[in-house]
Amino acid sequence: MARVGVLHTPHGQVPTPVFCPVGTQATVKAITPRELHDLQAGMILGNTYHLYLRPGAELIAQLGGLHRFMGWDGPILTDSGGFQVFSLEGLRRIGDDGVMFRSHIDGSTHTFTPELVVDVQEKLGSDIAMVLDECAEPHDYDYAVAAMERTHRWAERCLKAHRRPDQSLFGIVQGGIHADLRRASAEAIASMGFAGHAIGGLSVGETKADMLRILDVVTPLLPPERPRYLMGVGSPEDLVEGVARGVDIFDCVLPTRLARNGAVFTPEGRLNLRNTAHRDDPRPIQEGCGCYTCQNFSRAYLRHLIVAQEMLAARLNTLHNLHFLLDLMRRMRTAILEGAMASFREAFWERYQVADAVAREHNRARWNSRARRSSAGK
Amino acid sequence: MARVGVLHTPHGQVPTPVFCPVGTQATVKAITPRELHDLQAGMILGNTYHLYLRPGAELIAQLGGLHRFMGWDGPILTDSGGFQVFSLEGLRRIGDDGVMFRSHIDGSTHTFTPELVVDVQEKLGSDIAMVLDECAEPHDYDYAVAAMERTHRWAERCLKAHRRPDQSLFGIVQGGIHADLRRASAEAIASMGFAGHAIGGLSVGETKADMLRILDVVTPLLPPERPRYLMGVGSPEDLVEGVARGVDIFDCVLPTRLARNGAVFTPEGRLNLRNTAHRDDPRPIQEGCGCYTCQNFSRAYLRHLIVAQEMLAARLNTLHNLHFLLDLMRRMRTAILEGAMASFREAFWERYQVADAVAREHNRARWNSRARRSSAGK
Repeated sequence: MARVGVLHTPHGQVPTPVFCPVGTQATVKAITPRELHDLQAGMILGNTYHLYLRPGAELIAQLGGLHRFMGWDGPILTDSGGFQVFSLEGLRRIGDDGVMFRSHIDGSTHTFTPELVVDVQEKLGSDIAMVLDECAEPHDYDYAVAAMERTHRWAERCLKAHRRPDQSLFGIVQGGIHADLRRASAEAIASMGFAGHAIGGLSVGETKADMLRILDVVTPLLPPERPRYLMGVGSPEDLVEGVARGVDIFDCVLPTRLARNGAVFTPEGRLNLRNTAHRDDPRPIQEGCGCYTCQNFSRAYLRHLIVAQEMLAARLNTLHNLHFLLDLMRRMRTAILEGAMASFREAFWERYQVADAVAREHNRARWNSRARRSSAGK
Repeated sequence: MARVGVLHTPHGQVPTPVFCPVGTQATVKAITPRELHDLQAGMILGNTYHLYLRPGAELIAQLGGLHRFMGWDGPILTDSGGFQVFSLEGLRRIGDDGVMFRSHIDGSTHTFTPELVVDVQEKLGSDIAMVLDECAEPHDYDYAVAAMERTHRWAERCLKAHRRPDQSLFGIVQGGIHADLRRASAEAIASMGFAGHAIGGLSVGETKADMLRILDVVTPLLPPERPRYLMGVGSPEDLVEGVARGVDIFDCVLPTRLARNGAVFTPEGRLNLRNTAHRDDPRPIQEGCGCYTCQNFSRAYLRHLIVAQEMLAARLNTLHNLHFLLDLMRRMRTAILEGAMASFREAFWERYQVADAVAREHNRARWNSRARRSSAGK
C-alpha cells in the first residue's frame, strides 16, 4: 500500500508521504517560518478553532490571509475545528445544524455549522480545508453510527458551501473502531468527489492495534488517485505504520509538545533529557543527526536548559524532533521509490523501542502486520 | 570623551563601543548562538552567580568551558556574581573574607570570596572576568565608604589569585552617588594595573541625573588606554549618554527582558505591542529596520502572539530589541569615527521619547549635558 506522490497546491508542491508540523495559533510553537524552510517542512497545519476565536478569521483575511499573517509562504492545511470543539470540556450542544460550544478563552458562546467552518477556512485562505465532522468516542457503537451519519450530511453541506477555487476541500471518514461503519463511511465519503480524503476519529484513545486494523479497512477503499490524510497521528512508529498502509499526509502536535517537555526522538526510541543520566553527557541527542541542535549542543547542555527552565530548550528540542520526523518521512519516500519500504520498516522496528505500557500493544500490532506480510508471501 | 577601539580577546576582536547581550544561564534567553552571530553581537555576558549554582563551574569546565558548553565561539565576559548576591533577599552575611548567601534555587548556603569567584570564572573560561565587589545602596554615605574600601581590598586579592593568562581581569569602581568616593575609588582601582575598569553600583535605583553626574566624575579618571565598562546599563538613551562620556562596554538584561514582556524599541521610544492599538496594524515594529522580525512580521501578528502567549513572541521581540541596540552601537561607532557623535546624539534625542516618569529626569540630564556642551563651545 505504501506510495509516493506530489501534492500540487497554490503555494507549491509537496512530496508525499508528508508530515505536517502543527501551527495551532498561527505559529509552529517556538519555531520561525525560516526554520521551517530550513527543516524542509513541506506543509504545515493551522487550527481553525483557535484562529476563529483568536485573532479571528476576519482580522487574518484583512491582513492578507494566514500565509501572509504568519509569514509562511508554503502550503497550509487547516482542520475544520470540529475535533477541538468535540474535545472541549463542559457545555457543548450538538444538533443537526451544527455544534454550539463555549470558547476556552473567555467562555463566550459560538456555533460551528458546516457552512461557517468552510467560510472561516476560505477567509484564512489555507491550501487545503477540511469539512466539519463529528468525532465520536471510538467504542460506543450507537453513538458512532449517529456521528458518522451526521458527518456524511455535514460533508455534503460543506461541499455545497465551498467557493474558493484555489482551495481544496477534503472529506473525513468516521466510524469509530467499527470495521462495518468505517467501510460504510469510506464508501460514502469517497463517492462525494472530494479532492482528498481524511481518516478522522483515530488516535483518540483507541488501542494502537485498533487504529492499525481500521487503517487496513479504510485506506483500500479510498480512491488511489486522491491524497489520504491520517489526522492527528505523528509518533515515529505510527508514521511508519501509516505510510506502510498507504497514508500520504499526517499531522500531530506530538513532536513539538514532547520537545517542550524535554522528550526527544532517537532511532532507538524516545529520550527524556530531563533525566539525571544526561547531566554530564557530552554527546548530542543523536550521533550523526544533521539538525542544528545535534550539530551544536550536548545532552548535558540541553538538560541544563530544561532544568533552568530556559526557552531555548523548547526551541532546540523542537528543531530536533521536527527534523527527526521530516527526515523519517523523506527516508521512507526514498525507500518506497527504491521498492525497499518493507525492509525499511523492518530495520526501523529492529532499532526503535516503544516505551513502557504502549510497547506491548505496539508489538502486538507489529507482529500482526508481520503475520499479514508473511501470509502475503513477503 | 566618546571614543572607538578594538578589544583583543582569545575568541576574537570586538569593535567598541559594544553592547553585550546577557546570557545569564548559559543562553541569551530565547536566542541561539547562530542568531547572535547573525545579529553581529560582538561579546556576550554570562552570570557567574547563576552558573556557579547551576549547572556548576566544574561541570562546565569538564565539558570544555562555557564557550563550548553553550555553543558560542565569540568573546564572553563574566561578572563576579557579587551584584546578584547583594541583590538577594533574605539571609546574606558580609564579612571581610567574603559574602555568605543562600541559593535562590534550593536555599543551600554558599560563600563567595574574592579567590573563589576568580577560580570559578577561570573554570568557566570567559575572556574577561570581573573582581568581586560590594555594591552598596547608592545613597547611604557611611555604607558606601565601607563597601568601597572592602571592594578595594577584594580587588587586590582577586588580582593576586588570578592565574589564567588567556583571561583578562577587570577591576570595579564603587562609591555610590558620592563624587568624592567615586574619585577615590577610580584612582585606587586605576592604580592596581587591571586590564580594564568597570563602573559598578550604577543603574541600581539612583536617578538618571545622578548616574550621569557620577559617570562624568569617574570616566576621566580611568586610564584611557584600557577599556571602560559600565555594568548593567542598556537602555538606548543610557547607551547614547554612556558612549558620549567615554564608556566602551555595556551589558543589560533590559532588551531581552522587555522583549519577553512585549515591549520593543523604536527610534521614537518604547512601544508596548500588547496594546489594543496594534490589533490590526499591518506595519512592522519599525519601518526600514533590517531585523528578521521587521522584515517578516506585522505589529498585528506580534500582538496576536503575545496575547496568545506564544513563545515566538519572545523570540521575535528579542531579535528586534537586540538588533536595535547593536545597530545603535554600530551607528555611534561610525559617528565617532566621522567626528559626528555630537550631532548623532542631538538627532537621537530629537526623535527618542522617554516614557512617563523617567522623562523628566532624562530631560534634566539631557539639558545638563547640552549646557555643558554649550559652555564647551559646541
